[in-house]
Amino acid sequence: MTKNFTEENLTEAVIERMADCPNERLRTVMESLIRHVHAFVREVELTEEEWFEGIRFLTATGQKCDDVRQEFILLSDVLGVSMLVDAVNHRFPAGATETTVFGPFFREGAPETPMWGDISGGQPGTPCYVSGTVSDTAGKPLANALIDVWHSDGKEGLYDVQVEGQPWYGRGRVRTDENGRYAFRTIQPVYYSIPADGPVGAMLGALRRHTWRPAHIHTMVQCEGHHPVTTHLFVNGDQYLEGDAVFGVKESLIVDFVPHEPGPAPDGGTSDVPFVTVNYDFALTPA
Amino acid sequence: MTKNFTEENLTEAVIERMADCPNERLRTVMESLIRHVHAFVREVELTEEEWFEGIRFLTATGQKCDDVRQEFILLSDVLGVSMLVDAVNHRFPAGATETTVFGPFFREGAPETPMWGDISGGQPGTPCYVSGTVSDTAGKPLANALIDVWHSDGKEGLYDVQVEGQPWYGRGRVRTDENGRYAFRTIQPVYYSIPADGPVGAMLGALRRHTWRPAHIHTMVQCEGHHPVTTHLFVNGDQYLEGDAVFGVKESLIVDFVPHEPGPAPDGGTSDVPFVTVNYDFALTPA
Repeated sequence: MTKNFTEENLTEAVIERMADCPNERLRTVMESLIRHVHAFVREVELTEEEWFEGIRFLTATGQKCDDVRQEFILLSDVLGVSMLVDAVNHRFPAGATETTVFGPFFREGAPETPMWGDISGGQPGTPCYVSGTVSDTAGKPLANALIDVWHSDGKEGLYDVQVEGQPWYGRGRVRTDENGRYAFRTIQPVYYSIPADGPVGAMLGALRRHTWRPAHIHTMVQCEGHHPVTTHLFVNGDQYLEGDAVFGVKESLIVDFVPHEPGPAPDGGTSDVPFVTVNYDFALTPA
Repeated sequence: MTKNFTEENLTEAVIERMADCPNERLRTVMESLIRHVHAFVREVELTEEEWFEGIRFLTATGQKCDDVRQEFILLSDVLGVSMLVDAVNHRFPAGATETTVFGPFFREGAPETPMWGDISGGQPGTPCYVSGTVSDTAGKPLANALIDVWHSDGKEGLYDVQVEGQPWYGRGRVRTDENGRYAFRTIQPVYYSIPADGPVGAMLGALRRHTWRPAHIHTMVQCEGHHPVTTHLFVNGDQYLEGDAVFGVKESLIVDFVPHEPGPAPDGGTSDVPFVTVNYDFALTPA
């Protein structure tokens, strides 16, 4: 079939056109994508105006992206695509730490901090002492595991990359000791709105969806010989745990941020102000 | 369902989240889109690397767009989506002129030209005299129908908007007279490659697909009380009629560009050089 395409034969013709592609996986992915996009057009009988609105939306989404803003990841997140990709790629056994969405705010190159190092970057907020272990799913402690940590500020709910001229805050890399223990200090993040001033925010507005995420600390845990885990620690009691805009909340990731009066702190020092402590133990699946 | 989403329940959760959207059509379109995108992810078990490659591709496609380049329309064209949207929106009765892809090169505001006006903009090439009628599907001539015409140059296969600093060429608007007749003069366009220096070109390269389109003149015909028709007149004999990169060719749109020796031309003048004549009659469906 090389011409005279119709509603009935066009999909097969587009797929046939890839017959010479030597990359079998690429052919498989593209065939499925083409079949589903075509099925969508047929199913809703997409009008030309709607098609053009889609073109405009995708164009604006691409043009909203820059070094510190990734509007297509945001789109993927709010449509549940990111969580679905996460789910199909992390079918870990029971007992392994559950994964959740990566999000658009990770940056490479955060500094490594020693045990109980402060990653708050001097941001104001409630001091927050986080500690626990990394082990495998059989309970064996894992030494020298690397934990990337990133989170929003403690007042506005913004990440450092969202603040013009801000060098960094709320980012760090911590390692487990020989007993699989890790510990760091920061400030407690707050709930926040995903960036809502772009095309994705406009779409959510049209759909009458809110843009809020419950407060959380992002973590990415890696250890040689094990599957890495990208996840969050959600603050128990947050008002947006029900209805996270990006569908990321899982029961096992909701953690108590335990309040304490001023006094002795877990790092051996003393806090003059009220603080919270968090304990979370990660379990990685052997590769 | 507000948390603990899995491969199994996530799709329904994302759809439920739109329950308050007052625009029923938007809900319908988004539900179908979400179901198909999720089904695609499940079906191919999209890896995180592939997902990120997709994010990068969409971002680059958006960022390639500017005032004179529309990479997302191009993407839609090469995946057959544009032709499918065209097909589901133009189920005209037999006898009506068939439609084809709109493409990314139309611009508003072309000048209106009188009968046998020259729209070539002085481009070199074989003089080409195009004439015919616009009627309804019952054969009744339609007076005052408006035909937008646009096409590439006669040497390189570029549209005016693709050439830096070029004011315009190969664009015009012609009207039918009281007998439904139209006529204009230009130069014969040549076959060309779609813009291949962007993400869409790279994708076609990876799929081992060529980027050629057979030579054609774009037309968009409008007349009060009738469905407009957006189509092409393809040059009979072109080497790319089989395998058009955007799936646009239909038998009924392939037209003889009849060669003539220098001498009397159809506009009443004389051509010093060989020229071609084209006759095409459009038939519009009453609205």
